[in-house]
Amino acid sequence: MKWIRVNMSDLSVKVEDVPKKYEQMGGRWLTSSIIADEVPATCHPLGPLNKVVIAPGILSGTTAPSSGRISVGTKSPLTGGIKEANAGAKFGQYLKRMGYSAIIVEGQPKNKESRYLLNISKEKVELIGADEYKFMGLYELNEKLAAKYGKDVGIACVGPAAEHLLAGTGVAFNDVENRPARYAGRGGVGAAFASKGLKAIVVEAVTGQATILNNELFETGRKKLLAALQEHAVTKPKGALNTYGTAVLVNILNEAGALPTRNFSSGTFEGAKKISGEAMAEAAAKNPQAGMMGHRCHPGCVIGCSVVYPDAQGKSHTSVEYETLWAIGANCGIDDLDAIAQMNTMCNDIGLDTIEFGDAVAVAMEGGLLPFGDAKGAIALLEEVRKGNPLGKIIGSGCSTVGKVFGVRRVPAVKNQGMPAYEPRVIKGIGVTYITTPMGADHTAGYSIAPEILGVGGKFDPHTNEGKVKLSKDFQATTCFIDSTGCCVFTAFAILDIPSGFEGMVEACNAVTGANWTTSDAYEIGLNILKTEHQFNLAAGFTANDDRPPEFMKLEPVPPHNMVWDMADSELDSIWK
Amino acid sequence: MKWIRVNMSDLSVKVEDVPKKYEQMGGRWLTSSIIADEVPATCHPLGPLNKVVIAPGILSGTTAPSSGRISVGTKSPLTGGIKEANAGAKFGQYLKRMGYSAIIVEGQPKNKESRYLLNISKEKVELIGADEYKFMGLYELNEKLAAKYGKDVGIACVGPAAEHLLAGTGVAFNDVENRPARYAGRGGVGAAFASKGLKAIVVEAVTGQATILNNELFETGRKKLLAALQEHAVTKPKGALNTYGTAVLVNILNEAGALPTRNFSSGTFEGAKKISGEAMAEAAAKNPQAGMMGHRCHPGCVIGCSVVYPDAQGKSHTSVEYETLWAIGANCGIDDLDAIAQMNTMCNDIGLDTIEFGDAVAVAMEGGLLPFGDAKGAIALLEEVRKGNPLGKIIGSGCSTVGKVFGVRRVPAVKNQGMPAYEPRVIKGIGVTYITTPMGADHTAGYSIAPEILGVGGKFDPHTNEGKVKLSKDFQATTCFIDSTGCCVFTAFAILDIPSGFEGMVEACNAVTGANWTTSDAYEIGLNILKTEHQFNLAAGFTANDDRPPEFMKLEPVPPHNMVWDMADSELDSIWK
Repeated sequence: MKWIRVNMSDLSVKVEDVPKKYEQMGGRWLTSSIIADEVPATCHPLGPLNKVVIAPGILSGTTAPSSGRISVGTKSPLTGGIKEANAGAKFGQYLKRMGYSAIIVEGQPKNKESRYLLNISKEKVELIGADEYKFMGLYELNEKLAAKYGKDVGIACVGPAAEHLLAGTGVAFNDVENRPARYAGRGGVGAAFASKGLKAIVVEAVTGQATILNNELFETGRKKLLAALQEHAVTKPKGALNTYGTAVLVNILNEAGALPTRNFSSGTFEGAKKISGEAMAEAAAKNPQAGMMGHRCHPGCVIGCSVVYPDAQGKSHTSVEYETLWAIGANCGIDDLDAIAQMNTMCNDIGLDTIEFGDAVAVAMEGGLLPFGDAKGAIALLEEVRKGNPLGKIIGSGCSTVGKVFGVRRVPAVKNQGMPAYEPRVIKGIGVTYITTPMGADHTAGYSIAPEILGVGGKFDPHTNEGKVKLSKDFQATTCFIDSTGCCVFTAFAILDIPSGFEGMVEACNAVTGANWTTSDAYEIGLNILKTEHQFNLAAGFTANDDRPPEFMKLEPVPPHNMVWDMADSELDSIWK
Repeated sequence: MKWIRVNMSDLSVKVEDVPKKYEQMGGRWLTSSIIADEVPATCHPLGPLNKVVIAPGILSGTTAPSSGRISVGTKSPLTGGIKEANAGAKFGQYLKRMGYSAIIVEGQPKNKESRYLLNISKEKVELIGADEYKFMGLYELNEKLAAKYGKDVGIACVGPAAEHLLAGTGVAFNDVENRPARYAGRGGVGAAFASKGLKAIVVEAVTGQATILNNELFETGRKKLLAALQEHAVTKPKGALNTYGTAVLVNILNEAGALPTRNFSSGTFEGAKKISGEAMAEAAAKNPQAGMMGHRCHPGCVIGCSVVYPDAQGKSHTSVEYETLWAIGANCGIDDLDAIAQMNTMCNDIGLDTIEFGDAVAVAMEGGLLPFGDAKGAIALLEEVRKGNPLGKIIGSGCSTVGKVFGVRRVPAVKNQGMPAYEPRVIKGIGVTYITTPMGADHTAGYSIAPEILGVGGKFDPHTNEGKVKLSKDFQATTCFIDSTGCCVFTAFAILDIPSGFEGMVEACNAVTGANWTTSDAYEIGLNILKTEHQFNLAAGFTANDDRPPEFMKLEPVPPHNMVWDMADSELDSIWK
């Protein structure tokens, strides 16, 4: 395998052989390893010493089901620690089929006003001046790039909010319809990407399959994984995820009293039904031209958890996810699906992470900037972000900065990253994940919601602390491995309950890499990735005090369960022992 | 001795005997000890668990010369670490004469819209509703309070910017003319004070002298200290400090190539002469009704380092200090003395620390918000702060937040606190102080400028690293002791060069407290205060990585000397060994 090393200081591009150490790595394993090895932990995230690494998973570009995730790694401008965020997109599949396991972007152009585009084709890899796209919204950009480079290309790009270097921004990948809708969203990876002077990376479409060393073993593994996905209630055809999308969770979490509402001041939202997956499915059924359930983020996904939501005007808003419905909806007290979908599309266009945006708006609402439920006011804030006005820059910097600037103490963040859509005071295991993952508050880092709420992979009472550190640790380690394979985190549902599914995933990886891993090896690999990331953070200056919930969660009981965060700090710290 | 404990949660006021452990303490020693003992290091600085401690020095309220400093201690909303900021004012002298060694403010009112005033008289101590003063500017407030409580009262108060809970705010004390001009400025102590719902503390005027256990020893000590101050070239009558004020430093630092200019991009400012002490003295000579050199911050000061500057309209702007001239002047590329004096007065009125404000504006200028040198634009920013508009809230939050929001990498801060008026790449000793003091970048924490630039207390080449850690450590420890006595940090000039002066200071302290300290005991006491503060920060989550300069200072040589920060991290860390 090769990787592409782009130096933005001298605008050079090199194609290098992947050193032996990294040969079997992919996705998060590869991005976190390169960042840990090459980036000084204490460097400024927006400076010349930071790097941005983009890596498809081990299985990306193959026919393994739902394996098209692409990882973006860097030192996070939001948390100051190591970061991996991933998205499902054709981009990584093409890259892998072309024989590249990563793109490493380093250095920084002298002129911070310049913009560049990295064009990757079978013939050559080149940096091209791209000033004409400066501050361009991503819908227009993707249209222009598809027109210029071909409608099937893979595109990675950053919006105007990222060009303003705001820490609440992600890297957008184009979906199958060339919408900038698939986000490696969290931790400000968009700002890190933009700080390199890069506006976009375009990769030529490549059909076929990435290199596989053992085709027979691959087929065995692929089939076992596929069978598990197609058998499990959550992921199977006409299963929970493709019937209502991830939004199926709105009503479930609301009923559990764990849907954070109005800046984490309650666990239930009276408007939950109006923003639920059921409501979206109803809208899609009424307007089948514009709406679609079971949309796929990348070719080859067999789950199809996305929803193309049609608003009252019949406009398609792709992939309105649970997290967004919650962040911009319940958490801001907004129950208007059309307004949420509109803001989702605007975030995609501007380059914002919808979770961080929703958390930021909710904290600003708490700070008195606008009332809870004010959808029009929130939409106006997005226009401020696009323009780079001071208020927009505050909002685009994420909820922790909003809290500082507006003097708000109830800031639902860990390591400065805003919390996702599950109340940690009520669901203790996901709380352990938010608090201890090296990523900053992140549900995907160890999705214990599966056993705590959905009864998948065992059953745990969400309200108790007992066993939750081990539960979260096991999920975090396994997730590190899954995030390295290129498989969607939702494959975890099936492989947790159906052991042959996990075996199949590992066998497929062995077939691609020539390794001989067992499932317990996979767990160990994951645990080592986690430790590498944790070590980076320690070297960056993190301590056990960064593995703590915000103070208000210890002091303020959240209704309706009136629970506080009551796990001992020492128990949290035991995760690293 | 007694202290006053105010609980803002239940609005109770208690007068308590000072526990034995704290009996001999004063000023910074007392504030840092109480904060370390009573405040959980990881608490939210603006939450109910933080406390604000206000303590006069050991000698405050006596006739010891220049001993009227008052310390404000808290967990800093700006740095997240321990904080002590002090000012010279009659407030602390009255408090001490009344027999109080401290005011401890704890808890938080349920209704964050309410304001209170603590009224301290010889008869009683009471909390009074003060909603009528909410968001009032401090000139008007001080006038109103003097009219109501008497023109000689001591006042501690916070401006509208502090009520917005902005981290760049201080606590103002009234000067002899009842101007809110004496600031415990740094680290956001104003926001911490305001977060308690307190708008002001008024203390009745008390004449006479604070309790002294050994009058004879006191007189011996007092006279030795006084003689040293009146003999030393820097502090004597018609000496450097009272002839040109602290502003005497403008030309000196500019000539040394160490006057940080335009957000620390150069060490010389072409407009330095126009904003120098010499220029202020000329203006004061032309307009003796409005101007005055040698103004004193508190009764009993024998140095008189302040300048009442008269602007072109003949308006008096009190105490335009070197740090302000530099921060709002050279660092923002502004060479208009009248505009700087106007902004200084506005900062005093609004409640802002002028150093943090200047650093914040300079970073915003670098971020393209307004051009360097734009005095009108900077004045308009102050109006934004007063109103609590979003842009004003960014600026009022300090330079680190401005850097985050505006995506600026050249942020001259340590522990999030903006650097003062000396270029650490050029004057290495003060760099060690900025970087290692538990306070965040602070020149007063260990003013090695004395031997490095002024030839006081020995002579050190500013450009070399050699011996600078020890130099800074000695200064920091000694300063901790001086900050505990209530003596002005400028007494250090005299006592460094004239050993009997330091002896006198220590003897006077012994006379007040009944202790039997030698000058080496005083050093050890200071060192222990420093260690207590460092320990608090470690418990709050600080690591050696917080004792580091901003990255740009290692990468960017600053003209004219074209020097970078080149001291090894391990050398910095040796200060704690």
